[in-house]
Amino acid sequence: MTESLHPALLPNGLSDGLPPRAEREADTVDHLMTFVRGHGYRRVKPPLIEFEDGLLGGAGAALGRDTFRVMDPVSQRMMGVRPDFTVQIGRIATTRLRREPRPLRLCYAGQVLRVRGTQLRPERQFTQAGAELIGADGPAAEAEVIVLAAEALAAAGVTSATIDLNLPTLLDVLFDAHGVAADDRPGLRAAVDHKDVAAVRERADPALGACLVALIGATGPAAEALAEIAAVALPSEAAARVAALADLAARIEAAHPGLTLTVDVLEGRGFEYYTGVGFSVFAPGARGELARGGRYRAGPPEMGEPAVGFTLMMDAVLDAVPEAVPAPRVLAPAGHDRALAQRLRDDGWVVLSALDAAADPTAEAVRLGCGYVLGGGGPEAVG
Amino acid sequence: MTESLHPALLPNGLSDGLPPRAEREADTVDHLMTFVRGHGYRRVKPPLIEFEDGLLGGAGAALGRDTFRVMDPVSQRMMGVRPDFTVQIGRIATTRLRREPRPLRLCYAGQVLRVRGTQLRPERQFTQAGAELIGADGPAAEAEVIVLAAEALAAAGVTSATIDLNLPTLLDVLFDAHGVAADDRPGLRAAVDHKDVAAVRERADPALGACLVALIGATGPAAEALAEIAAVALPSEAAARVAALADLAARIEAAHPGLTLTVDVLEGRGFEYYTGVGFSVFAPGARGELARGGRYRAGPPEMGEPAVGFTLMMDAVLDAVPEAVPAPRVLAPAGHDRALAQRLRDDGWVVLSALDAAADPTAEAVRLGCGYVLGGGGPEAVG
Repeated sequence: MTESLHPALLPNGLSDGLPPRAEREADTVDHLMTFVRGHGYRRVKPPLIEFEDGLLGGAGAALGRDTFRVMDPVSQRMMGVRPDFTVQIGRIATTRLRREPRPLRLCYAGQVLRVRGTQLRPERQFTQAGAELIGADGPAAEAEVIVLAAEALAAAGVTSATIDLNLPTLLDVLFDAHGVAADDRPGLRAAVDHKDVAAVRERADPALGACLVALIGATGPAAEALAEIAAVALPSEAAARVAALADLAARIEAAHPGLTLTVDVLEGRGFEYYTGVGFSVFAPGARGELARGGRYRAGPPEMGEPAVGFTLMMDAVLDAVPEAVPAPRVLAPAGHDRALAQRLRDDGWVVLSALDAAADPTAEAVRLGCGYVLGGGGPEAVG
Repeated sequence: MTESLHPALLPNGLSDGLPPRAEREADTVDHLMTFVRGHGYRRVKPPLIEFEDGLLGGAGAALGRDTFRVMDPVSQRMMGVRPDFTVQIGRIATTRLRREPRPLRLCYAGQVLRVRGTQLRPERQFTQAGAELIGADGPAAEAEVIVLAAEALAAAGVTSATIDLNLPTLLDVLFDAHGVAADDRPGLRAAVDHKDVAAVRERADPALGACLVALIGATGPAAEALAEIAAVALPSEAAARVAALADLAARIEAAHPGLTLTVDVLEGRGFEYYTGVGFSVFAPGARGELARGGRYRAGPPEMGEPAVGFTLMMDAVLDAVPEAVPAPRVLAPAGHDRALAQRLRDDGWVVLSALDAAADPTAEAVRLGCGYVLGGGGPEAVG
């Protein structure tokens, strides 16, 4: 015997999207996809589930613990419900679309599921939308993708976004240059992640410690932060990466003057996937980041290609998109002029048909939340 | 040791949506949802997974064997991946939205998964879109929903759809009136489903047999079929249901003159869910039905409400929607006028930015499938 649950009860972290938010989400996804498609990104739609080997191999391994698995009764193999799109897009690019000319621009939107939420974000189902530029190395591709993320959000109504640039691989470059032993890296990385200057000084040798502390302090608006970083004595490989980041910031500024750029070179949490520059997008009013992206290798390791892309987290995007003005609602009495009603709908009105011919149209309109009744000449305001 | 799969291999019945079909699907869903929202249907978005008790209770039980199940590590209860939307929409209507005025009009679009495909349709993931009118009994509600399905499809480009009306419950009404024993019903139902007149005559008593054979023959265009059915001697409850169907056909014809209506009253396969009129939509070029709908009870049994709705099967809809004319593609050389490029995108052009400043723009345009290069004055045709 199972104790019976109230029918309205949903599992923790899963929820019903209700009007008007469900409508606003669909409309915003649509605006974002239309925008990126205008830049040549073509839409693909990977399946919700696929063999776990493909979904969780290579770069996907990091999400293995977060992935719902089901047995496929047809093949008797395990399948996973996608926890993210990026691995699937890389698979499509490097297999099905391997003969398409490069760079290959792809976009997507849909649902992802995670086994567990976090304390900060209990949700386990997310709407993601994104764009990936595959088969192109170099800063022009990175600048295109970062500016595209910002402009797509602006087109959807997010006008005060901030882009935070970072170098998730820089810490390992510095560790290599300073000969930090593998065993010492996790502790030192945690100290850097928490910006715990005392712990950094304690764990690192004096030269590396001074360098890390200087970099931890050199965060904020891009121009100032990059100037501060330029003054830090860095090993040559690290200096080259920082110089590339400064070049990228200059390209972004040239393409979209006035975009708010910040820099936090050592920020690396959640960017394990990336092989070069990483970035996050923030906006006032949104809980957490609106988008995350960066440079990575697309596709299975044996057929990988350079790629750069971003993923929008629609929950956070919707927090930052202004509420839409609801369409005016009209009640059309039984026997109304159907052609007139359709013309109004084409002009953006919502026209409900009354089902009950006997009911008083004005009272019905008020009851159904309509501000108008359809008369012979058009909508007539009620009350 | 697991034998390693080719990374491009997907489980049977699951596939990648590629351009341009993935784009056309997204655009068509968007058109359909915009159309039904214009009629007052508000979009909801139930979660992809929920507790199986809710998903598969009551009317959902029929899909139990088709449902992927996963254990929820948070609640330790079983969850199911939805095999269909209708049960979820009924749950939302009768719980979360129970205080909203009736009739309640809701719409939805998204993915559903099934454990197994059929021989005819091996697919296991479907895009469904639909509309439900909840809390209204009677023929006006049924006519609204059926006409809405046809007009939404027409707005999306399916101009030669046929609506097939049926009465899935009629056979049980006839069985009751003629006192057919419960044990004899499945065999007789199968004979009727296969339109096997000889088997029907053999299994039914002469009066019922004559009636069933007459009804099996009375199919086709609505006017003729309904006239033939009116001439069949039917028990009173069955006659009342047939009269209601004729009234509904007349209402549909009045609301949308010229819509192609057919009648096959005894067609009942796959309509077990419905409690009154059922309907299917067909169109030339489409494999299988584009939509299916009818009258049912929404919500869990203890709080159920009368409802009528339809679900569009987007695979079949896309087979019947004309191919879209691809947007013209322009390659914008490095250093192009970004404002000009954006104006073109706003006008429906696809404008790709060249990443490599050194490349010959015309050759690059040809390589990337662009018919134009962006010059100072606008797009210039190549070749």
